[in-house]
Amino acid sequence: MSEYFNFEFDRENRQGFTEVIYCEGKPNEVFLEILDQITDNLNDTLFLLSKVTKEQAYLLKEKNVTVYKKSRFGSTYIIGGGKPKIRTGKVLILSGGSSDISVVEEIALALEFHGLGFESYQDVGVANLRRLSSLYSNIDEADFTSVIVVAGFEGALFSVVNSLFSIPVIAVPSPVGYGKGGQGEAALFSALQSCSPGLSVVNIGNGISAAAIAVRIANLIKST
Amino acid sequence: MSEYFNFEFDRENRQGFTEVIYCEGKPNEVFLEILDQITDNLNDTLFLLSKVTKEQAYLLKEKNVTVYKKSRFGSTYIIGGGKPKIRTGKVLILSGGSSDISVVEEIALALEFHGLGFESYQDVGVANLRRLSSLYSNIDEADFTSVIVVAGFEGALFSVVNSLFSIPVIAVPSPVGYGKGGQGEAALFSALQSCSPGLSVVNIGNGISAAAIAVRIANLIKST
Amino acid sequence: MSEYFNFEFDRENRQGFTEVIYCEGKPNEVFLEILDQITDNLNDTLFLLSKVTKEQAYLLKEKNVTVYKKSRFGSTYIIGGGKPKIRTGKVLILSGGSSDISVVEEIALALEFHGLGFESYQDVGVANLRRLSSLYSNIDEADFTSVIVVAGFEGALFSVVNSLFSIPVIAVPSPVGYGKGGQGEAALFSALQSCSPGLSVVNIGNGISAAAIAVRIANLIKST
Amino acid sequence: MSEYFNFEFDRENRQGFTEVIYCEGKPNEVFLEILDQITDNLNDTLFLLSKVTKEQAYLLKEKNVTVYKKSRFGSTYIIGGGKPKIRTGKVLILSGGSSDISVVEEIALALEFHGLGFESYQDVGVANLRRLSSLYSNIDEADFTSVIVVAGFEGALFSVVNSLFSIPVIAVPSPVGYGKGGQGEAALFSALQSCSPGLSVVNIGNGISAAAIAVRIANLIKST
Amino acid sequence: MSEYFNFEFDRENRQGFTEVIYCEGKPNEVFLEILDQITDNLNDTLFLLSKVTKEQAYLLKEKNVTVYKKSRFGSTYIIGGGKPKIRTGKVLILSGGSSDISVVEEIALALEFHGLGFESYQDVGVANLRRLSSLYSNIDEADFTSVIVVAGFEGALFSVVNSLFSIPVIAVPSPVGYGKGGQGEAALFSALQSCSPGLSVVNIGNGISAAAIAVRIANLIKST
Amino acid sequence: MSEYFNFEFDRENRQGFTEVIYCEGKPNEVFLEILDQITDNLNDTLFLLSKVTKEQAYLLKEKNVTVYKKSRFGSTYIIGGGKPKIRTGKVLILSGGSSDISVVEEIALALEFHGLGFESYQDVGVANLRRLSSLYSNIDEADFTSVIVVAGFEGALFSVVNSLFSIPVIAVPSPVGYGKGGQGEAALFSALQSCSPGLSVVNIGNGISAAAIAVRIANLIKST
Amino acid sequence: MSEYFNFEFDRENRQGFTEVIYCEGKPNEVFLEILDQITDNLNDTLFLLSKVTKEQAYLLKEKNVTVYKKSRFGSTYIIGGGKPKIRTGKVLILSGGSSDISVVEEIALALEFHGLGFESYQDVGVANLRRLSSLYSNIDEADFTSVIVVAGFEGALFSVVNSLFSIPVIAVPSPVGYGKGGQGEAALFSALQSCSPGLSVVNIGNGISAAAIAVRIANLIKST
Amino acid sequence: MSEYFNFEFDRENRQGFTEVIYCEGKPNEVFLEILDQITDNLNDTLFLLSKVTKEQAYLLKEKNVTVYKKSRFGSTYIIGGGKPKIRTGKVLILSGGSSDISVVEEIALALEFHGLGFESYQDVGVANLRRLSSLYSNIDEADFTSVIVVAGFEGALFSVVNSLFSIPVIAVPSPVGYGKGGQGEAALFSALQSCSPGLSVVNIGNGISAAAIAVRIANLIKST
Repeated sequence: MSEYFNFEFDRENRQGFTEVIYCEGKPNEVFLEILDQITDNLNDTLFLLSKVTKEQAYLLKEKNVTVYKKSRFGSTYIIGGGKPKIRTGKVLILSGGSSDISVVEEIALALEFHGLGFESYQDVGVANLRRLSSLYSNIDEADFTSVIVVAGFEGALFSVVNSLFSIPVIAVPSPVGYGKGGQGEAALFSALQSCSPGLSVVNIGNGISAAAIAVRIANLIKST
Repeated sequence: MSEYFNFEFDRENRQGFTEVIYCEGKPNEVFLEILDQITDNLNDTLFLLSKVTKEQAYLLKEKNVTVYKKSRFGSTYIIGGGKPKIRTGKVLILSGGSSDISVVEEIALALEFHGLGFESYQDVGVANLRRLSSLYSNIDEADFTSVIVVAGFEGALFSVVNSLFSIPVIAVPSPVGYGKGGQGEAALFSALQSCSPGLSVVNIGNGISAAAIAVRIANLIKST
Repeated sequence: MSEYFNFEFDRENRQGFTEVIYCEGKPNEVFLEILDQITDNLNDTLFLLSKVTKEQAYLLKEKNVTVYKKSRFGSTYIIGGGKPKIRTGKVLILSGGSSDISVVEEIALALEFHGLGFESYQDVGVANLRRLSSLYSNIDEADFTSVIVVAGFEGALFSVVNSLFSIPVIAVPSPVGYGKGGQGEAALFSALQSCSPGLSVVNIGNGISAAAIAVRIANLIKST
Repeated sequence: MSEYFNFEFDRENRQGFTEVIYCEGKPNEVFLEILDQITDNLNDTLFLLSKVTKEQAYLLKEKNVTVYKKSRFGSTYIIGGGKPKIRTGKVLILSGGSSDISVVEEIALALEFHGLGFESYQDVGVANLRRLSSLYSNIDEADFTSVIVVAGFEGALFSVVNSLFSIPVIAVPSPVGYGKGGQGEAALFSALQSCSPGLSVVNIGNGISAAAIAVRIANLIKST
Repeated sequence: MSEYFNFEFDRENRQGFTEVIYCEGKPNEVFLEILDQITDNLNDTLFLLSKVTKEQAYLLKEKNVTVYKKSRFGSTYIIGGGKPKIRTGKVLILSGGSSDISVVEEIALALEFHGLGFESYQDVGVANLRRLSSLYSNIDEADFTSVIVVAGFEGALFSVVNSLFSIPVIAVPSPVGYGKGGQGEAALFSALQSCSPGLSVVNIGNGISAAAIAVRIANLIKST
Repeated sequence: MSEYFNFEFDRENRQGFTEVIYCEGKPNEVFLEILDQITDNLNDTLFLLSKVTKEQAYLLKEKNVTVYKKSRFGSTYIIGGGKPKIRTGKVLILSGGSSDISVVEEIALALEFHGLGFESYQDVGVANLRRLSSLYSNIDEADFTSVIVVAGFEGALFSVVNSLFSIPVIAVPSPVGYGKGGQGEAALFSALQSCSPGLSVVNIGNGISAAAIAVRIANLIKST
Repeated sequence: MSEYFNFEFDRENRQGFTEVIYCEGKPNEVFLEILDQITDNLNDTLFLLSKVTKEQAYLLKEKNVTVYKKSRFGSTYIIGGGKPKIRTGKVLILSGGSSDISVVEEIALALEFHGLGFESYQDVGVANLRRLSSLYSNIDEADFTSVIVVAGFEGALFSVVNSLFSIPVIAVPSPVGYGKGGQGEAALFSALQSCSPGLSVVNIGNGISAAAIAVRIANLIKST
Repeated sequence: MSEYFNFEFDRENRQGFTEVIYCEGKPNEVFLEILDQITDNLNDTLFLLSKVTKEQAYLLKEKNVTVYKKSRFGSTYIIGGGKPKIRTGKVLILSGGSSDISVVEEIALALEFHGLGFESYQDVGVANLRRLSSLYSNIDEADFTSVIVVAGFEGALFSVVNSLFSIPVIAVPSPVGYGKGGQGEAALFSALQSCSPGLSVVNIGNGISAAAIAVRIANLIKST
């Protein structure tokens, strides 16, 4: 056993969602020891790494770790071997603007890791309601098991989407905006104050947790 | 049509959750006009009122409005006639302490309004882990479709419960605590920072929204 | 001259907007001295009083001050004699919910004081987009010189309205909402973070200042 | 259509203000795809880019994008071809100190983009009231359709200017100041708390939105 | 000696400023014991009480305590006998609006207690610069040893006055204003961020401390 | 078992500190049910109640509950029968001013409940260092097992005391002070930022927790 | 004596805890002068340096300072000669996750400096209660004199551990977490709001102060 | 006249304190134009520059600007020729720790610029009261006209010094400390909440303003 680390290899079996390895802030020595510990299982197991720094990405490369998939922007990796276990259900991902893309990618990879399908539409914020309305009229909510909305600035998209859908809607504030409250705080406050009840909120930029809510809901459907 | 009010009578049909009448802050004249408008439908329709003030409760009595059920503490009312439409699913409600009771009652009434069953256990906070463990070992999570956790103070119960269950868990911070952060802010921060992914957060004391998440999930199961 | 007070009787002539008498927090002795000073001009001059407390309202009655008009809720008074000077232009007032009514009334009275017409629609928040869309399609923005939007909770209405109109839109956050940020802070943050540019923001509940912006714009049109 | 981006080419026609491309935080791949999409229109259309990072400025150069004009400091670009559509009206821009210059430049470029004239005076803060008074006595407010004031530190300039003019005044807090509140928060609070009613406030450093308010007002005059 | 209280009777001799008895929050039993202890010295000594509550004012009356002077509004008392020790110097007190009057009165009484003269002008805020300029041109700063400025809302008066005078200027934020930051926070931030150096700031509503600064300065002059 | 309440009667045995009954916020019905449940044990067991409201104090009286001791100010009660179990050790309690008295009383009662002796000195804040020094030179720290310091305002007393003693020092910020930060926040920040290491901090006004730390330390000594 | 520095060489004798040299923020010239001053004592004295920056670490190397021990991660150094004075007692250190390691190392070094033994278990947060329970059942609390808990995110571990142990528990919030409150604020709030009384809190990342509390307690035991 | 800059060359004559050139945040082009404008006066005039960045320091060197004196740490410069005008009075500067040195140096240079003498003692914080007491007993406060105290962390030094002296005391919070509130906020709150009246507070790190208060007081003495 590691002096630093105490990995729960069976968390997905126990809880229906993997133990994500949150990488930011871990010293290199710790990061490498984690890699060593999990690579013994790499042949047939996948692992999900979030908030991988550039230096850590370099270490991954240098150690020749098998990368199953990684996000184009941002810092999410699926490493190891084998295939995700396919789940029933499909998630609709909507984002307010093109600056939200790295949060969207973290969500997408976490869903893919858990074998859950999704459709994704970017830059459909309320600055152009016709764009949003036209998208909405082309979507059949019966095709989806939940909606994940990513938005920065004032986060108006959360309430607007939540009032259109009757399936579970999950709000992910994104750290984009102007001056005061622009690190995602205004969007977080909007999500928490939604005038439309039934919105599930996660912290700023926490795409992993939003995906986990969607997976928990999908788990539920499978088991009914 | 009212000059002040624009009620959406068919919201439950459209969205699967009723238009709740949030009463606090409404002047008496407005409150009475709302009552007048909805009592025309009282014979066979139920309405959900939240945050009813003492003065408004008195007006309800004076106007002889038919009360289907009201919370013992706090300020939630179901008024009108008819019966709730029964839904599949059952919700587990847990609270950290006996001061959370008025939030718990708001949740319970909102679930009952939407025909969703529940089991409720109070005062099972982390100050006594054995109490919580013994409760947990007597519960079969397969009996439930979601868990709603109400907690004030440091909100440690949210993460502890979220890491025990694999079904959706919803956190409702309660406005109870000491000095700095004691109006529920510390509990809200805990919920948003949970080290255990997949926790759905609502704002402090917003039991209505927690119930709405549970109903949205239950709606989904019915439709699968 | 008063020891406490230094009234600028000609401010409307100088600046196109009256010196409003902000009443909250003034001791009775000061309030009465102000009344005494301005009632010498009551025959042909109107005065605008904001945030009048219940005790001050009682003093107004006891002193037999001539009330030209007062708000039904809230605490705005026009006292004195004469008639407002009529201005060109019309303001569209929209509010998110029926709890915003006292802010709306303050705006309406301040506009009436300055002879500016308005149309007002309450409870048209984003929880029901169809309601809002139907209202929007019945409005011709060419009829108006500005839009004032009053909203509490998450304030999503500000951005939605601002992206629909091309005339000036003014956001007034209303002190209505849940727990954290529920005293209008979340709505204020939303207004300041609007993803749609060109939104004029005033402080929480400051209907007087919103009316003053509308009057400044109307002044401008008259002078072109 | 782009996977990331959903540009509304006709927003200026629809709303009287262009869709500004907010660049900060967009990954290079997204930024380049946006450039590709809009350069197809470069011959006769102008585009406004705000908060362009140094790396993005380098990409603009490398792609040989036609730059119509760029700010000397800060990071605002007008790219593309054609000429701005000239509008009636003129804006007076005042700034408190020489550190506000990059916000002033963003405003100036956004006004120029929309064909609106302006006069600009820097470093006229309240630390020297004689400087400000002498400036004020040389200005005829009838020449202008609005005033935009940029100020950091305590933002006293907002109220002082707002109480001197009767045309619309717009406050842009600038992120300059000492320790606590020195990122523009104190100036923002001052703007929101102005003792002089009728001040339009935008978020810290949001020159684009201030320009958009001025343009909305100018649009209105043209249409009267 | 009291179990609760530990009065330093000679503080004025030691420090040149009396030990003020801050009354708010003291239980009646404690308040009465303090009165008992100090009334033994009432024949020839004066005591300064601040933030006296209504209940405590009633106790003062009931105990027939000799009141030397009390503020008309607010809650400051000088009790006991004898006469203040006269000091050299005169303080100029300026306030932004008539709602600041109770803070002004606390300052005035504390100065009178220490035998320091003052002149006081109310409601000279920046909403009317001509009023302020005319006042300023009638004042000779050589007549004064310091200026105390009381202002709420945005506190612009602090910087404006500080840039006009070369003697020490002391800023007392007053708890008056709108919504966000309206309990004096915006005014406090303004004072701390003044673009004009050399402004001495005290906490919101702390008139006693402002008077103490003025007295410390006057002490210094006497001793030169 | 109660529907609301889940009392751990043996917590003192398990943890060395009783389960305190935090009363504020509990509805009367819940409070009475708790009383009923514990009065079955009143003959030979003591219970500690904190933050008892006036209404609850009245209920205690009406139900003729046996009160072992209650605080003169504030709202702490020891009810029931029997005697505290005597512990080794003695606590030194110091407070900055006479307004801290109700927090001091809560601490004193909680120590007495657990059979721990104490000495208490009030109003020994840093405004008079000689007072504090003289007290310090008369105290032998070898007589005590810990020091509890209660202070409001700027909380300078925490660091000063912590740097004088080598036994454990516990800081309890008290909700007393001026304007900004005056609800105990400034004192809490001071405690957390102490330049002198080894200070144990509890939340504002949480005397119970400070006493519990002292009891945990005393428990330890007994067991060595 | 140094112009900058005023070292108290005998603080450990006076207070039982050394004067730690907090290095961050000190200019190189000051840092070097401190090194010069203390290296005169290096033969038989140890010094504790905290928050050593990379540049300062380089200076240490260049000056050939004798390093007794340094933390693997983070920035704590023991320099000089001689041996720590051994103390009675043992500390249990628990951390929530592997990102807390640098705080843990600072604590460990500070304990070692003062001759206090410890056992340390990492990554035992509440995301896996079984892991924590199994650890707890293998520990005999009689072996320890205090517990130091390091946790980031929601800090639920503080309350859970505090409710399991009856010896003193010390909470060190760690600056690890998501978006809002993720710099350790949420964990700090949790510690301050613990529903379980008797938790000693120190500021975010202040491992030195936690160690000092443990040493003060150990000092006490030695002296009994 | 510059397009960016509007220098008031005679401010020292008008106000008794120079117009300080605050450099941080000014673009190079603006900084150079300011240098050009003022170097025309360099032969017999001194200028004070604060918060000079490393890049700006390099520009100063490259332009061969005559440096009269610069701070060893930090970023304050006196440039130009001639000699300061000598003032009566002497300032006592005290700092809590050696990390406050760059703030101390800014104060020292600003005093020297205005011809005011000073004595300075570093690292005399409350962690060692004997050190402070011994310093205090060697100082005769009659030698000084004011005291400037610089302190970070909890800022306890402000109140302790303020209660020892009867001349004006000025508090400068320094941006040094731990986690929450460690950027000088805790020290600022302490200064604003001082239990000892008569403390003049400036913003975090604003040594210039503290010096200006000392100069204003010295001006006053000269003129008596």
